[in-house]
Amino acid sequence: MNGKLITFEGPDGSGKTTQIKLAAGYIKSRGYDVLTTVEPGGTAIGKKIRSVLLDKKNLDITPKAETFLFLASRAQLSEEVIRPALKANKIVICDRFFDSTMVYQGIARGLGIEKMLDYSLWATGGIEPDITFLLHIGPGKGLSRKRSSGSVIDRLESQEDDFMQKVSQGYLDIAKKFKQRIVFIDACKTIKEVSGIVRDKIDGIIG
Amino acid sequence: MNGKLITFEGPDGSGKTTQIKLAAGYIKSRGYDVLTTVEPGGTAIGKKIRSVLLDKKNLDITPKAETFLFLASRAQLSEEVIRPALKANKIVICDRFFDSTMVYQGIARGLGIEKMLDYSLWATGGIEPDITFLLHIGPGKGLSRKRSSGSVIDRLESQEDDFMQKVSQGYLDIAKKFKQRIVFIDACKTIKEVSGIVRDKIDGIIG
Repeated sequence: MNGKLITFEGPDGSGKTTQIKLAAGYIKSRGYDVLTTVEPGGTAIGKKIRSVLLDKKNLDITPKAETFLFLASRAQLSEEVIRPALKANKIVICDRFFDSTMVYQGIARGLGIEKMLDYSLWATGGIEPDITFLLHIGPGKGLSRKRSSGSVIDRLESQEDDFMQKVSQGYLDIAKKFKQRIVFIDACKTIKEVSGIVRDKIDGIIG
Repeated sequence: MNGKLITFEGPDGSGKTTQIKLAAGYIKSRGYDVLTTVEPGGTAIGKKIRSVLLDKKNLDITPKAETFLFLASRAQLSEEVIRPALKANKIVICDRFFDSTMVYQGIARGLGIEKMLDYSLWATGGIEPDITFLLHIGPGKGLSRKRSSGSVIDRLESQEDDFMQKVSQGYLDIAKKFKQRIVFIDACKTIKEVSGIVRDKIDGIIG
């Protein structure tokens, strides 16, 4: 497989969507085939799973059931979309990937990082990101950005503050643990500053 | 936990539904609280997962995604329904449980029995059946029974014959592997003969 997998991580409201669009445009301008996708979702089956996961009516979903639903979506996305794209030398950009599971389920829900990584690697058939951009914002800031912009807040986003605090700390933990792969970026920087950092690192990956 | 978990396994058309009804009636007549449930499903979230799994439009679902969806349903069912019922001293009867995953995904789809068992035990939080009735019929016989009765054939049932052959052999394999727990019954016997065997074994379990 000669393509590359680039993932973006960070709490909702950290600016992932904007930065993914800018990164995809930049990679295209460099003459590469780009495929942008999202987790959970990215496939017909993934979209059905996403609707179960983000539905506010499903507040009684257990942490383990939640974990397996994310893994199901990831397994389908990896096999149906990411692996064929990487084989076709495409640059794949994914909005969230297994770091989200390590942080949200492994750390914030307390199910364990190692198990989440182990299950995820089985789900992806060994596919790992070549580089991950972690857009860091302090707990609560992302949601207040989203709320003030009038965006809809989903089930995972409407979790209590304590949970979002753990998510924020969890991202810091995995940034340290996987520092070779994860590029830590302060998302309070301007859009232009962040995209500049992303571009430089992408140049290093695609050559 | 003082309750008991009784599971019924076997290909569709092997007579599980009939035998579960008879077993539940018998246990009730013995003065016990009985709770009957089904996999995948058994909870609101499980039903949504079941509809994804059995929808014939989802023919492109990958074996790993399929596995994780079953595990998600099982995790939710174990935590929300089975564990509380066992704690309340109920006798729980489940139509399919983790033996199905070992046979369909582990053996027939080739993902490995040990991994399926390992993932399942994490999903259930360690809950295992106290006894399992395996209604054995040769490959193809169950479906022809269902077809001739006018029942709807779902996605998993409409798999090719080779797959159903592997399922049939897989059930024989796990019956040997877990012979302490699994009661192997030839489902070609009459309904009365089968229910007689089931009653005797249930007497041994509930005392």
